[in-house]
This record gives sequence, C-alpha cells and structure tokens, in this order.
Amino acid sequence: MPVKLAPPDPASLLPVPGVELGIASAGIKRPGRKDVLVMRIAPDAEVVGVFTQNRFCAAPVTLCREHLHAEGGVRALLVNTGNANAGTGEEGLARARATCAALAGQLGIQPAQVLPFSTGVILEPLPHDRIIAALPAAIADLRADNWAAAAEAIMTTDIVPKAASRKVSLDGVEFVVTGIAKGSGMIHPNMATMLAYVATDAPVSCEALEAILRYAVNRSFNCITVDGDTSTNDSCILIATGVSDNNPPPPVLMDDGDARFAPLRDAVTEVLVELAQAIVRDGEGATKFMTVRVEGGRDEAECRQVAYAIARSPLVKTAFFASDPNLGRILAAVGYAGVDDLDVDRVRLYLGDVLVAEHGGRAAGYREEDGRRVMAESDILVRVELARGDAAATVWTCDFSYDYVKINAEYRT
Amino acid sequence: MPVKLAPPDPASLLPVPGVELGIASAGIKRPGRKDVLVMRIAPDAEVVGVFTQNRFCAAPVTLCREHLHAEGGVRALLVNTGNANAGTGEEGLARARATCAALAGQLGIQPAQVLPFSTGVILEPLPHDRIIAALPAAIADLRADNWAAAAEAIMTTDIVPKAASRKVSLDGVEFVVTGIAKGSGMIHPNMATMLAYVATDAPVSCEALEAILRYAVNRSFNCITVDGDTSTNDSCILIATGVSDNNPPPPVLMDDGDARFAPLRDAVTEVLVELAQAIVRDGEGATKFMTVRVEGGRDEAECRQVAYAIARSPLVKTAFFASDPNLGRILAAVGYAGVDDLDVDRVRLYLGDVLVAEHGGRAAGYREEDGRRVMAESDILVRVELARGDAAATVWTCDFSYDYVKINAEYRT
Repeated sequence: MPVKLAPPDPASLLPVPGVELGIASAGIKRPGRKDVLVMRIAPDAEVVGVFTQNRFCAAPVTLCREHLHAEGGVRALLVNTGNANAGTGEEGLARARATCAALAGQLGIQPAQVLPFSTGVILEPLPHDRIIAALPAAIADLRADNWAAAAEAIMTTDIVPKAASRKVSLDGVEFVVTGIAKGSGMIHPNMATMLAYVATDAPVSCEALEAILRYAVNRSFNCITVDGDTSTNDSCILIATGVSDNNPPPPVLMDDGDARFAPLRDAVTEVLVELAQAIVRDGEGATKFMTVRVEGGRDEAECRQVAYAIARSPLVKTAFFASDPNLGRILAAVGYAGVDDLDVDRVRLYLGDVLVAEHGGRAAGYREEDGRRVMAESDILVRVELARGDAAATVWTCDFSYDYVKINAEYRT
Repeated sequence: MPVKLAPPDPASLLPVPGVELGIASAGIKRPGRKDVLVMRIAPDAEVVGVFTQNRFCAAPVTLCREHLHAEGGVRALLVNTGNANAGTGEEGLARARATCAALAGQLGIQPAQVLPFSTGVILEPLPHDRIIAALPAAIADLRADNWAAAAEAIMTTDIVPKAASRKVSLDGVEFVVTGIAKGSGMIHPNMATMLAYVATDAPVSCEALEAILRYAVNRSFNCITVDGDTSTNDSCILIATGVSDNNPPPPVLMDDGDARFAPLRDAVTEVLVELAQAIVRDGEGATKFMTVRVEGGRDEAECRQVAYAIARSPLVKTAFFASDPNLGRILAAVGYAGVDDLDVDRVRLYLGDVLVAEHGGRAAGYREEDGRRVMAESDILVRVELARGDAAATVWTCDFSYDYVKINAEYRT
C-alpha cells in the first residue's frame, strides 16, 4: 500500500448520535484556513482523556485536566490549530480560560464543561480574540455528519486528514465508533504532537471508558514514533454518549465485567490503531512505513526499548529513505538499546521474510539483492528475535528524508 | 569561528618520542585511498583504552579488550577504514586475528601485542588479505612526525582531519601530548563512531593513566552527540611511552598522588576536548556548533539528561539549521527529558546572552530579533537554568541539515 493514504471517504465516517461538530476559520496562522473546531456533546455522556507527559505541557492541557471531571460533565470540545498555547505561562492559561468561557456562554453551559485544545507553534501568545470571534460560525455549522470536515480542520503539517469508523454489535445492538486525529511531526509515545477525538454512542461507565482508552492508547498512539520528540500538547479524548438511537434510555451502562466490554474495547482499539498508523504514514517527509517487531524478550518493556532504539535511529531511518539495505545500522541500534546482558550471538534480524543476521553476523544465506527487494517496498517489516523470553512489542515508524528537514526548518515561514 | 575548522597545521603536531606512525593504501573501499595506519610503540610504554558499550561491538573491539593487558605490553596499533568488521561473527574475529598476526610477524612481536581497530560499513566481511598486503608499505612509512598524515588516513565521512597537540611542563621537564581522532556520524556518548589515539612521552603508571583517560573522556567524547547513534567500534586509546628525550631512563612512573598528575591530566583533557569538539564541528552535514549548558540541577546526571534531550531533538536541530529561533522546541525538549518533578515555572532559557523564557513562558523582554541575531551565528550557546540545585553539565552538538540525510542515505554508494 502507498505510504500516504488517500483522504478518508466522508461517507465511510459514521455519525455518532450525541456528537455534533462545527468548523470555522479564525485566521490564526493563515487567513481563510479552517482552524477552529467545536464539538458539542450530549448531556450525560462520559468523557475521558489521556494527555502529554511533557512537563512543559500547554495551557489547554492544564485546563483539560482541571475540567475533565467538571460538575455536570464535559459538554463541548474547542480545538484550534496554528498556535499551541504552550510555553505561554499564566497569560496562556487566562487566554485558554477566556475561550472556554466564550464558548460556554454561547452554548448555555459552564466554562468548566468545555475542554480546550491547541496545536501549532509553541511560545507565542494565543490569539484568543480571533478564536472567540469565530465561535458563532462554528456553532452555526454544528452537524452530526461533519467528521470529515473536522478531520481536515485540525490538521497542521498533516498532508492527509485522518479519520476512521467502525460498527460494533453488542448483544445484538449496533453501535458506532468514529474518530479523527492530527499529527505528523513531534511524534513519540506518551504521546505524540497529536490530537485525537474518538466517540461512540455505546453506554459506558466512566471507569470502563478509562480502561478502554488506556488499553487502546497503549496499543496505538504509544506505539508510534516519527522523530522521538514528545509534544507539549498531546491529547486523546474518548467520548461515550450513550444516546444511541438503538439504545432506549435509560441505557444500561456497561462496566468492565460486561460481556459487551471486550468487543467495544477492540473496536475502539481498531479505530485508534488506524489513526495512529495514519499519523506515521503522514509523518513529516515520510516515504516509507516501517513496522518494527521485537520478539523473544524477557518482558514487553525491553522489547519496546529495542524497537524504539531502531525506530528512532536517524541512521536507520536515512538508510530506509535511501532503500539501502545497510542493515548493520539496525544491529548497532539493537546493540545500544540498553539491554545490558543481551547475547548478540542469539539475536536474529529479519527484513520482511528475509533472514539477514544471526550468530552475531550476516546470515549465511543472505543475499544483498534479497535485502534490496524488501527495501524497495513502501511498507516494510523489520523483525528482531532476541531469543531470551516470550514477550514481544511492535512499534510503527517512518523513514527520515530531505523533506523532514525541509518541513521542520521552514515550519514558521 | 566557522563550524568547519581548517585542517591542523602539520607543524603544530608534536612528535611523541616512542611512537611512530606509518600509512598505506589497501584499497578497502576505494582504490588509492590511504586506509591503513600502523602505530609502533616503544617497549615498556603503558597503553590503556575505553571502548564502545554497544552490545554488538565489533570484532576488533573484542580483540582489543583481550590484548590490552597482553604479556610484554602493547607494541603496535593497526587501524583500517572502509570496513568496520562489525556484525561479522566468528569469521570477523578470525580475520582481525589474522591481521594482528601478520603485523606482529613483520614487527617481531607477539600477535597479542597488537591492538586492531576498524571503522566503516557494518555487516560486511573484512578484506583482511588486502590489509595484510598493505602492511609492508605502512611499516616502511613509520615515522615519528607522521601524525598529520595519520589523522587523514583514519577519516571516513570526515571532511576535516582532527589532531591536536599540547606541551606540558612537569616538575620543570617538558613533555608532549599529541592525539588524532576520526568520527562525524553515529556520534553519541559511550562513545561515538569514533577512534582516537593519544600519546604522551610522560612516564605514567598504568593505574594513573587509566584515571587520566576516564577523567578526560568524561569531559570530552562523552559530552558530544551528532545523531544519538552509538557505534559498534568506538575506541579511545591513551599511550604513555615514558621514553622522552628529556627524561633519562629509568623514568620515575607517576601515579595519581604525584604532583605531576594533575597538569598532565589537564593537558590530556585539553587535547581530548579539542578532538571531541572537532568531531562535532565536522558532524555530518553540520552548519552550526551548539554548546548546550544545563545549570542548577540536583545532580550532574539530570543536567546531562536535559542537555542530551535538547541536543538530540531533530526538531531543535532542524530549527538551528534554519537559523529560526523556534525556541519553544527547546522548552518542549526540557519538558520531556524525564525530570519528573521539574517545576517548569522556575526554568530559564537563554540563547547566547538573551533571556528567552522564564515563568513558564516567553520572557517579557524577549524580542524575536534578538533571537534571530544569536541564531545567525555559527557557534551558539544554549543555556538552561533548572533552579533546583548546584550541578551542571555541558554537551556539544551540531544542527541537522539536508546534507545529514544526503550523506547517510548515500553512505554506501
């Protein structure tokens, strides 16, 4: 499959009863660009989130953490691109609060019922007045079938909008899971420069929804890296409205002991994995999509450690860009990944289906042309067997090209 | 000062009595290129070394560790470029042993008295026959004043040869310290893809020489990063011949209680710092030299952690390449460096003499043109005050340019 995906077909994105989306243009970075998204959420929905672990988290992230358990529940999300409102101190918090208050006033809810999100350049003042001025247009645009436009409105250096939908049948009742995400640089786990909003109409308890989000994020957004940089603004929000047309109120909230829990969790995970992989495919300057799979570790942590050492290495990533099977660079990364007692003589390296290295050196049957054949593909599997246990981990990443440098050198111009 | 230094003036490189250097061309990667260096060391010299911590260490590194304490002492070094003899398994060890045996036979010493070193492409068989065939020419070339030619012979993707010399007066007797190094990519502490050979004619005990090397390496080669990749072959060797013309035999070996210890240690450190900084200045594609200084940490380890987070960030490095004061990226790196209880409101960021950020945001007096003025320079100081202790650490790095990608994408072509 090509590295860059086609934009999602709007018809494939299923509306989620209880969620409406409205888009507007505030002219934050460029005039005329759609850069503001409002999501209105039905009363009684459960909303949970995970956020960046960066100590310099942005003002909106601080407010999200504060508002997430607001009285009356979260009723709206407000997203802007073009400015991250990060590294902006007290003034940044005040401006984010002002946008929440303005939206709340117009929707007839409390300011603490609004979660704010910002993405874009760091260390510059948020033009909150322009965002506030754009709110009436965004509210007028609120529609349940606006997911495709919303995916486009939250893009920054993204080339392709990212959205995914699944249907899931729970006890014979059909529900939907639909999500959008943005992000293509400053991408590393815990989390990336990424925003993701996923909603389902299934009725779920807050605790069960938290468990689903943790499970799904650990298998999706926490398995990707573009450049190893962890952003100040990463946020992933999961909404369960419980107002499905198919689910007569009052719905029976499912908890994690419910038979419906696992299928819903898996559907959410599928949506998040699709979004996470789409972010890597749209990685800044990416020309290849790489799956790095490390097997046979003592525990998942050391497998992830080795997988990330490979996936982060600029030398590995430039070799993939060049389609050059300079595979010793992968071995070098395995060697410095920090697994101190690793027996390198037992390690095996596969590129696609080709055994490249074993017994501490090049495999006897390895031929350069086999390596070249796999490297020429745009989707490549790198598989490492550590042969010291039963654990495994997978990380997705992309190559490192001239365009990565160009995009990031010219980001503010 | 310009990022790339001029090649060292051969006349400035002081011969070290007891060390001779000979260069030859074995045609390992390209016909006609000088790619073999032999260093002959006087009997009774002390030789100590530090090596890569990469688990996939190269065959010559394994042999070095084995030979370093050989009976009769180390009497010769054999270096080749063009092939790293790494990821080559048992066969790689056998080939490295064969080169040691061949050189030993021609010099009338034992094979275990030879330390072998290789640098270049990983995972390809060492053409040991060609190296052995070039040994007579290298031996015929052995001269004490060959340091400049040796610095050139060990280059791979280096553009500028790296060498430095110091004179040091110990108790009124003058000694010299001269060293050469190579390396420009796969550069990260513990150690870089780098080879360094430093010699002094001072008489030093083995233990004192070990202490000097550890001290100097921790303040030089362990303070640099180009791309965060730790090589399979890094080696730094320190030789003390004790055969100075100024020092009538038998010399009195100095130990670390000797008054001469500190001045010699400092002279060796100066040489290593000069070589380490030269490696960063010659970093693949580098157009800027950055000193990242982190102060006010609780201990040196956390200061290094923050300094390396900044120095490794592709987003920071591409912003420096563009001379764009997109300084929020530095704050983001401070924030994800892993100092969990960091109070970001107390952190201050300086670019050169300009205060950029404090109180969690942009400094009130900061003006974009001040940032641009500093970013336009080729030597830039980034200084971070953590304001939580008295420790400090410094790391040197370079920017990330199109040419880094180009050099590493085309490395094997």
